[in-house]
Amino acid sequence: MTAPATTALTVAYDGAAFHGFARQPGLETVQGRLEQALTIALRREVLTVGAGRTDAGVHALGQVVSFAASPADPGPSELRRSLNALGGRDLVVSEVRAARPGFSARYDAVCREYRYLLVPGRVPPLAIASRSWWVKGTLDLHAMREAASMLVGEHDFKSFCVAPSAAGKRTVRTIELLEIGPENVLGEHCIVVRIVGRSFLHSMVRIIVGSLAQVGHGRRDPAWMGEALAACRRDEAGLTAPPQGLTLWHVGYPEEIWL
Amino acid sequence: MTAPATTALTVAYDGAAFHGFARQPGLETVQGRLEQALTIALRREVLTVGAGRTDAGVHALGQVVSFAASPADPGPSELRRSLNALGGRDLVVSEVRAARPGFSARYDAVCREYRYLLVPGRVPPLAIASRSWWVKGTLDLHAMREAASMLVGEHDFKSFCVAPSAAGKRTVRTIELLEIGPENVLGEHCIVVRIVGRSFLHSMVRIIVGSLAQVGHGRRDPAWMGEALAACRRDEAGLTAPPQGLTLWHVGYPEEIWL
Repeated sequence: MTAPATTALTVAYDGAAFHGFARQPGLETVQGRLEQALTIALRREVLTVGAGRTDAGVHALGQVVSFAASPADPGPSELRRSLNALGGRDLVVSEVRAARPGFSARYDAVCREYRYLLVPGRVPPLAIASRSWWVKGTLDLHAMREAASMLVGEHDFKSFCVAPSAAGKRTVRTIELLEIGPENVLGEHCIVVRIVGRSFLHSMVRIIVGSLAQVGHGRRDPAWMGEALAACRRDEAGLTAPPQGLTLWHVGYPEEIWL
Repeated sequence: MTAPATTALTVAYDGAAFHGFARQPGLETVQGRLEQALTIALRREVLTVGAGRTDAGVHALGQVVSFAASPADPGPSELRRSLNALGGRDLVVSEVRAARPGFSARYDAVCREYRYLLVPGRVPPLAIASRSWWVKGTLDLHAMREAASMLVGEHDFKSFCVAPSAAGKRTVRTIELLEIGPENVLGEHCIVVRIVGRSFLHSMVRIIVGSLAQVGHGRRDPAWMGEALAACRRDEAGLTAPPQGLTLWHVGYPEEIWL
């Protein structure tokens, strides 16, 4: 008897509708809502694993969620339709794929991309208000890029991690790419921060963005980012940017895991 | 004594929050909300004129609204801040400008640009659900462009106008530009229809988009658009696309009207 395959869902959601990704008794969470829908669609209890445990308010475009398949499960298109009928309007399953036995959306991920949307300016954004952080005033893109360059590569990111969750844990991570550029989204002039790495510490992306905003505003000079990194102390880095500007954009896996 | 100048507001709003632009007793409308805020901010009764009477559900990025100024009115920045404090979260005044006496946001407009966001595909959009029309399936961009080309220029658009409002009125209009292109908005693959002209008939843009979608789906061939136009009968054109995909993007005026 061959081991059963794994099913991988690509999931988008509106972070405002959930108390974060991770299942919590009595609270509406992405994982809870998905497992409830899967239990109805597959007529069995289903436990899932997510690629990124996004915090309350953080959105996803390409979150990946896996669970052990059963030979009796419906095919990908049918399951996708059922889950979208059951998942509610704040959650969309955009793809259902079969992966090899033992696949884990969390442990097999080779890269994660997050994007953060900042809106500078004197008036608040409207069309993308729920998907961005209005930072008021102007942002110096050049200074932000100079500061960002100090974070790229392998470093101990202890300064950029929520303190208690860093205690006794390995806080070395590698940022593969940290790109900051202007983008027009639905007529709003935004600054998009794209960050790619294998994995990130708790709140790491939001603390990096909060620190970059301080540099962009001219409250800190770019060199401060290198000092904050070297200090390995949370209070040396900047504030945590609010969750609604952040989206888990994409999770990458080795091609050979797909069946 | 010189005649008082006019004040012009550039206004963005979320169409879902209002029963359309035009003031209606007992209903929440954009004009009603603005006039209420102006009355408080300026401590006098204010009647406004809007460049486009957008229908219920239609959004705006660059609606322009004018009213006769008084020498006692606060300056542009102060008025902008007051209106944004009073206007609520679904309405943003992005600019306040002084225009010459007698300026009318409606009659002095030399061009209006609308944009319509279509989302093809098998799964519904999430991040831009409230700003787009999910058309399911694929859209043939080439066929849509061919059909669109027949509408550009001066024509009698009676087929593309809500019938009762066309009765006895001049229905000749000029479309200066009708551009259809792919665009990635917050990770969603969209088709954006951009349409520019001096003025449009009631529901004209939405009927054009609804007709284009029928061509895009292959239900009609591109030549049908020319026949529908020539027929000068509403029932020869396509369905009216839903309001939430439409945004009044920009209104243009001659440079010399600004003080």
